[in-house]
Amino acid sequence: MKPVVMKSMSSMGLKYEAGRLWVLDQTLLPHQEKWIESKTPQDMIALIQRLAIRGAPLIGVGAALALAQYAHGGEAGPGADMDQVVSAAKALRVARPTAVNLMAAMDRMVLTRDPSQLSVASLVAEAERIFDEDVELCEAMAERGARLIQDGDGILTHCNTGGLATVGIGTALGVIRRAHEQGKKIHVYVDETRPLLQGARLTAWELGRLGVPYTLICDNMAGFLMAQGRIQKIFVGADRIARNGDVANKIGTYGVAVLAKHHGVPFYVVAPRTTFDDQCPSGDRIPIEQRQPGEVRAGNSPAECAVWNPAFDVTPRSLIADIVSA
Amino acid sequence: MKPVVMKSMSSMGLKYEAGRLWVLDQTLLPHQEKWIESKTPQDMIALIQRLAIRGAPLIGVGAALALAQYAHGGEAGPGADMDQVVSAAKALRVARPTAVNLMAAMDRMVLTRDPSQLSVASLVAEAERIFDEDVELCEAMAERGARLIQDGDGILTHCNTGGLATVGIGTALGVIRRAHEQGKKIHVYVDETRPLLQGARLTAWELGRLGVPYTLICDNMAGFLMAQGRIQKIFVGADRIARNGDVANKIGTYGVAVLAKHHGVPFYVVAPRTTFDDQCPSGDRIPIEQRQPGEVRAGNSPAECAVWNPAFDVTPRSLIADIVSA
Repeated sequence: MKPVVMKSMSSMGLKYEAGRLWVLDQTLLPHQEKWIESKTPQDMIALIQRLAIRGAPLIGVGAALALAQYAHGGEAGPGADMDQVVSAAKALRVARPTAVNLMAAMDRMVLTRDPSQLSVASLVAEAERIFDEDVELCEAMAERGARLIQDGDGILTHCNTGGLATVGIGTALGVIRRAHEQGKKIHVYVDETRPLLQGARLTAWELGRLGVPYTLICDNMAGFLMAQGRIQKIFVGADRIARNGDVANKIGTYGVAVLAKHHGVPFYVVAPRTTFDDQCPSGDRIPIEQRQPGEVRAGNSPAECAVWNPAFDVTPRSLIADIVSA
Repeated sequence: MKPVVMKSMSSMGLKYEAGRLWVLDQTLLPHQEKWIESKTPQDMIALIQRLAIRGAPLIGVGAALALAQYAHGGEAGPGADMDQVVSAAKALRVARPTAVNLMAAMDRMVLTRDPSQLSVASLVAEAERIFDEDVELCEAMAERGARLIQDGDGILTHCNTGGLATVGIGTALGVIRRAHEQGKKIHVYVDETRPLLQGARLTAWELGRLGVPYTLICDNMAGFLMAQGRIQKIFVGADRIARNGDVANKIGTYGVAVLAKHHGVPFYVVAPRTTFDDQCPSGDRIPIEQRQPGEVRAGNSPAECAVWNPAFDVTPRSLIADIVSA
């Protein structure tokens, strides 16, 4: 039997090269670009949980590659046996509870398959397909979404939904990037996105590299900006979309959607089909991850003060102008 | 002629003792309690501008004491002549542009008076009156506002409006404190209030000292909290209230007011009469201070990224259930 070869693949925040899997540590951006090797599914779980790798599509792809590598064995080979792969898929699946792409990737590769059909070849092929599809889905969404953007638009976005959140050009930020590439004169307002500042640290960094004009704001400035008529459209990503169209996304998204409604600004969600959860009837059934108080305290508040720190919130379909998908 | 004696006065963030004026440096709270002496009006202007002393009522009182001290001369005596006092009043008046209490205090002490009536005695008496009145106004607002609070209420507040923002028990936070002292079982949700975190640093510190149960949140979590039915009332302060009832207050207040409207949660503004500007017809005429980009970047974003950093926003009267005043 011909040995299975796993091809090299790379994106802004993830690379698989010569049997080794690397993650750009997003917690250190924008000041330091440090790649960390993930050697085992446990490594990848830890990287996902501490947000070294984040973004709903990206953690799905990252988990898929980690699992394929585990089965394949990389340079070291041979890899894990299929019982071990199934256990690893189950563990990866629950590394974080809200974004469904991670679960969908594990189900698709392993957990909804007939165990007798699992093989190194099938796992490698499926992981590569998940990677390639994510790139293609981003392209398709960017094309569709960019049609919504006009010359002169002020655009607000929240969190990071670009090349760091996917292995393609991104979801919401991919749309914005494509409009810019099409020559449309746009200005992007970037919510800093507390507590972990994915907007200030990651989106600002990406837009700077792309040469897209942008201005950073604190999350609590978005309303005043809309009141001044400076925002024509809002684009955000999603971590899970329920069957009724309710959207879980980074905490603060819901507040932006309410503000958008109040000001008559169209609020668009951009997400690939891997973010839709057909098993979930409505937004109130989406589990919301609660994270550590220290992320909010950040050395500023009294040391032991009580904190509420949901990583996501849910925006009802009624506040969303449209969901751009592919 | 009997020498004018300026009495000692102190509050949580300001004290005048034996001719010397001190300010608690609020930029260092909650980790460090450091008092800084203000020896001249220029010292006070610098303290106001770098927010060592902040809070609309408090900077009015601080400027009044600085001016009285300047005229009086303190221990060193004699003080400045009246021409110098008038110049200092003009300079203090414009130290920050949005909160009107500062302007009102300078007008009342000096700038709307007949110059022939200015004297050390009149300035000292007026500064003392401004101090004492602020204490009394806080008490009166607390009594009135506390009647709006019921047992079991979840209360959201933004920025800091307590003993650190006034020389009394505060405006919005004074109301909350009084309800707690009355034995009402309340829980306070504290917006951290980016970029300078007056909620996380100051309000959390005050509530902790008072023993009022509270939970810190990021500003962008307020909407999700309201969606869950956990907020029954919102109390905020004000920096200036226009003749039509529009309210300028700390950036982010407007967004909270829109969210409150959407969720049917009553939104109350608590402010003394010194915060009303009868010369200003409506909110769009209130000058909004723009502050340095570094406050928002805070070492997180790309070093040179463009930032929009208004220190205040304007909430229209239509979004306000009532203004509690005295």
